[in-house]
Amino acid sequence: MKRTSFEHWRCSIAQTVEVVGDWWTLLILRDVFWGLHRFDELLADLGIARNILSDRLGNLVAKGVLEKHPYQEAPLRHEYRLTEKGRALWPVLMMMAQWGTDWAIDGTPPVTFTHTACGELTHALLSCDRCGETLAGHDLRVGFNVTREEASGRAAS
Amino acid sequence: MKRTSFEHWRCSIAQTVEVVGDWWTLLILRDVFWGLHRFDELLADLGIARNILSDRLGNLVAKGVLEKHPYQEAPLRHEYRLTEKGRALWPVLMMMAQWGTDWAIDGTPPVTFTHTACGELTHALLSCDRCGETLAGHDLRVGFNVTREEASGRAAS
Repeated sequence: MKRTSFEHWRCSIAQTVEVVGDWWTLLILRDVFWGLHRFDELLADLGIARNILSDRLGNLVAKGVLEKHPYQEAPLRHEYRLTEKGRALWPVLMMMAQWGTDWAIDGTPPVTFTHTACGELTHALLSCDRCGETLAGHDLRVGFNVTREEASGRAAS
Repeated sequence: MKRTSFEHWRCSIAQTVEVVGDWWTLLILRDVFWGLHRFDELLADLGIARNILSDRLGNLVAKGVLEKHPYQEAPLRHEYRLTEKGRALWPVLMMMAQWGTDWAIDGTPPVTFTHTACGELTHALLSCDRCGETLAGHDLRVGFNVTREEASGRAAS
């Protein structure tokens, strides 16, 4: 299936969706953060079709989220590692994990997060990097440098 | 296209993907957070096919993320509003917007966020709800209450 491209949408969320907005891509990234780096490991863990995994990994490499490192010479084999751009996705995955635990999982949460600095089970909040206070949605004023047409790709040249 | 269901995966991220992990769903939610609540407004803004929009809105209502409120009697028309479960997704969208701005947008960011309490342009960080300190990925110890098989749906009954 040909997917819609959001390449011309001047919207930060659309550009993130362009990179990671796919059913499988976020779960592949989950596994790489989790320490699985090899094609066959990901294939076995996710139960994904080989061609889909290959396509999604290729896209993540092309977009600069993952990079290939050789781990074996003959035959040549690569593993996939997060780049700095890829590692910067962890707050997105963290907030997805937390929302899933809070709202979409019944019973025992599959994972818990302990903050090693204080030793407590933690729940991540957003905070302001300028004043350090907690950020709530209603504390944010959104400024637009684009029109709604640009943000939905309708003003593409 | 029949999509893979992640319903039986005991993984918070997979359950979030099950609700919002679709090319269009996150952009529909972006628009609803942005103040567009009606089918025809979303249709015009996103340039999405009518049947796809209808399907994705129906799924978000079924999953309890949006709810329908009548705004007109004859003919009966509904608008879509975020539930509490839906509003709880804003940190996910916020961190996606921020990653998109930081890593996937060239030049002027499409949106900026001002923290009204301090008046400064803000960049959201994650912080620990117990000690208040900033959370970095390497500060987190992940505890698993599931096996890898359960987290990838391979242990489903």
